[in-house]
Amino acid sequence: MPEFLTLVPPDQALALWMANLQTLPSFEEIKTAQSLGRVTANPVYAPHPLPPFTRSSVDGYALIAADTYGASDSLPAYLQILDEVKMGIEPDFGLLKGQAALIHTGGMLPPGADAVVMIEHTQSIHSGEIEVLKSVAYGENTLRIGEDVAQGEEIIPAGVFLRSPEIGGLMALGITELQVVRKPRVGIISTGDEVIPPDAIPKSGQVRDINSYSLSALVEESGGIAVRYGIVPDDEIVLQNIVVEALESVEIVAITAGSSASIRDITSQVINRLGAPGVLVHGVNVRPGKPTILAACKTPTSGINKAIIGLPGNPVSALVIARLFIVPLIEKWLGVRRREIHERIKARLMINLPSQAGREDWIPVRVNLVDGLAQAEPIFGKSNHIFSLVRADGLLKIPADATGLSAGESVDVILF
Amino acid sequence: MPEFLTLVPPDQALALWMANLQTLPSFEEIKTAQSLGRVTANPVYAPHPLPPFTRSSVDGYALIAADTYGASDSLPAYLQILDEVKMGIEPDFGLLKGQAALIHTGGMLPPGADAVVMIEHTQSIHSGEIEVLKSVAYGENTLRIGEDVAQGEEIIPAGVFLRSPEIGGLMALGITELQVVRKPRVGIISTGDEVIPPDAIPKSGQVRDINSYSLSALVEESGGIAVRYGIVPDDEIVLQNIVVEALESVEIVAITAGSSASIRDITSQVINRLGAPGVLVHGVNVRPGKPTILAACKTPTSGINKAIIGLPGNPVSALVIARLFIVPLIEKWLGVRRREIHERIKARLMINLPSQAGREDWIPVRVNLVDGLAQAEPIFGKSNHIFSLVRADGLLKIPADATGLSAGESVDVILF
Repeated sequence: MPEFLTLVPPDQALALWMANLQTLPSFEEIKTAQSLGRVTANPVYAPHPLPPFTRSSVDGYALIAADTYGASDSLPAYLQILDEVKMGIEPDFGLLKGQAALIHTGGMLPPGADAVVMIEHTQSIHSGEIEVLKSVAYGENTLRIGEDVAQGEEIIPAGVFLRSPEIGGLMALGITELQVVRKPRVGIISTGDEVIPPDAIPKSGQVRDINSYSLSALVEESGGIAVRYGIVPDDEIVLQNIVVEALESVEIVAITAGSSASIRDITSQVINRLGAPGVLVHGVNVRPGKPTILAACKTPTSGINKAIIGLPGNPVSALVIARLFIVPLIEKWLGVRRREIHERIKARLMINLPSQAGREDWIPVRVNLVDGLAQAEPIFGKSNHIFSLVRADGLLKIPADATGLSAGESVDVILF
Repeated sequence: MPEFLTLVPPDQALALWMANLQTLPSFEEIKTAQSLGRVTANPVYAPHPLPPFTRSSVDGYALIAADTYGASDSLPAYLQILDEVKMGIEPDFGLLKGQAALIHTGGMLPPGADAVVMIEHTQSIHSGEIEVLKSVAYGENTLRIGEDVAQGEEIIPAGVFLRSPEIGGLMALGITELQVVRKPRVGIISTGDEVIPPDAIPKSGQVRDINSYSLSALVEESGGIAVRYGIVPDDEIVLQNIVVEALESVEIVAITAGSSASIRDITSQVINRLGAPGVLVHGVNVRPGKPTILAACKTPTSGINKAIIGLPGNPVSALVIARLFIVPLIEKWLGVRRREIHERIKARLMINLPSQAGREDWIPVRVNLVDGLAQAEPIFGKSNHIFSLVRADGLLKIPADATGLSAGESVDVILF
């Protein structure tokens, strides 16, 4: 089995793969209202300050702060009510010394006014006059021009995953369209003479295609677009034709190999026939997923080096390897930052977990929150058991240099 | 300001609100291939065992375990190679004592075989015979019928958020369609004479509609469907007509009130005119978001008590309150379990954070991972500053009974 002569550590394998790819992310203009979950292509700058005019942050009276200095319950300041600031309209009057205007939260301060007193700190004497029972500082209870954002300020860097606050902020500035990174397309090819579509009834010896669908879901979850190329029999020519077709139109080609050695050989032969760089890694020092193939191939027309990955056929191995190798590639393409706080948590391991030193292990775990603290409970099952992942919330890593982990240890869990 | 006579603690307010709602989730049948992120309506049971036949988990020779007992390098067992198991086809032969058959990973064991020896532990003598160099136990290197899932076993409970492993597992069992909970619709009404659509150019005194869009994004992120009813002027009759229309067709009506007291009064008057139960909570003991209104109103035709919420107009307050009150309602409707491990993390607070005892505070925080440990760094900004949330990754709670939190404390952060 020449393929396994040198098993490459996962981190090194990923780095080598990435170094051989020419990813050229491209951008598209979309409506901000439809941008949830997309990633900014460029930094976004404020076209004008926010707020664009000085506003009241309370219900009260706009006034000149100096008129209230020294005012108190026992020694109120007396001000003449000039007018009321209507919402949404620029006041057509200005304040002079000794004058105030009724103002609502969000209203625009009239010229001359430099502060607002809360209505609770005033008393109406008659319709034309109020007592101010408290001294108000310059600028108090107002939102000044540009206090939230200054004109020209970078409001969102490139590579930001757009959530509800960003969408609100963009709308506040009238940015109703923006450039986002186009989603990378991941072509998924299932192989195996024994594999049939999920809606078919398997005869003895046949199994349904799991990986096309579980991998599609993982790709979509991670911000990519899954393109399923169906099930290919264990035939070199047929597989090669489909790989060439996929290479032209997607960014990453994933082949979920039949799991036997002979089929893995077909995959690597097909890849190498497509020319250099070809297969870069054949065998990763990880469990599950040892028979993984990482490759880069030039597309027939553009000559760009695109990613090809040969995934193990076992459904758990395929998902774990896709999480460790395809998801980082999607995130690199998107240029997305700070996803890790949503994907990785610290948890306390509940039992001792032995492992073989010299190999990185990824164990499915269920995560239980007990008094707000995450506890990781390993789910044991063979890598053929898709339902061991169904029962799991994430994956726990046992580093290659460890001979296991102890109960009570704090461990990192990648959430699914 | 009668509305704020009694400020209800957030947890109590939510419980009171939920107790007055008649949520009747409904279901829909969808394709499993399109079910990512949806929630199971019912428990799903395995229609057949998985695997449905005994398979080899390695490349090797199917054999009768007893034939290998005592075999070793120095004393191999000799077996006659009868045939090869073809992938995807039921073997048309059976093994007798002393016989073996070449088999690939995933191949079906022929009748008579009860174990598989790995190819590495055999040696070919001539084309018709092998030496087995290692004793193999009964069942070794095989996946037995039902080892992953037994027939009739509950494979996915109701209320499960569907991810890549579930979709793979459903496909493995031929379940290509399933019942999921219909997404709840949240109607969003913006009010305020000063509010204009985001694509309009504001005149002095006008501001763009932020909340319709930030709330829509939060609703969609949480598994609901946002229905925007546009911007309504500060007019009781117009608002009432739109609320009645929305009550008929959505599950939750959210009114982002103009932030002044007079507009809030219009909202509560409109709600109370729609009949009992009407306004349940007017003023929540939380910052930001004190002027929140929680209400339940019968729909005009069905007579079902549906949820109405009056949100503060400040964009930060609106998003925080939506996170605390609308998201739990969406999750209750969906019946979804175990979302909290994706939403809440433990972090170490980086600075002292004072707060007013007797009131629950929610502070926007940025979360930085340092050596895998989450550190929470508060982002200070007024509740009018949408960009204070843009800079934040989540919200940190200061409980009502605390007078603040200390640097170094472990705190809970809800991620945005």
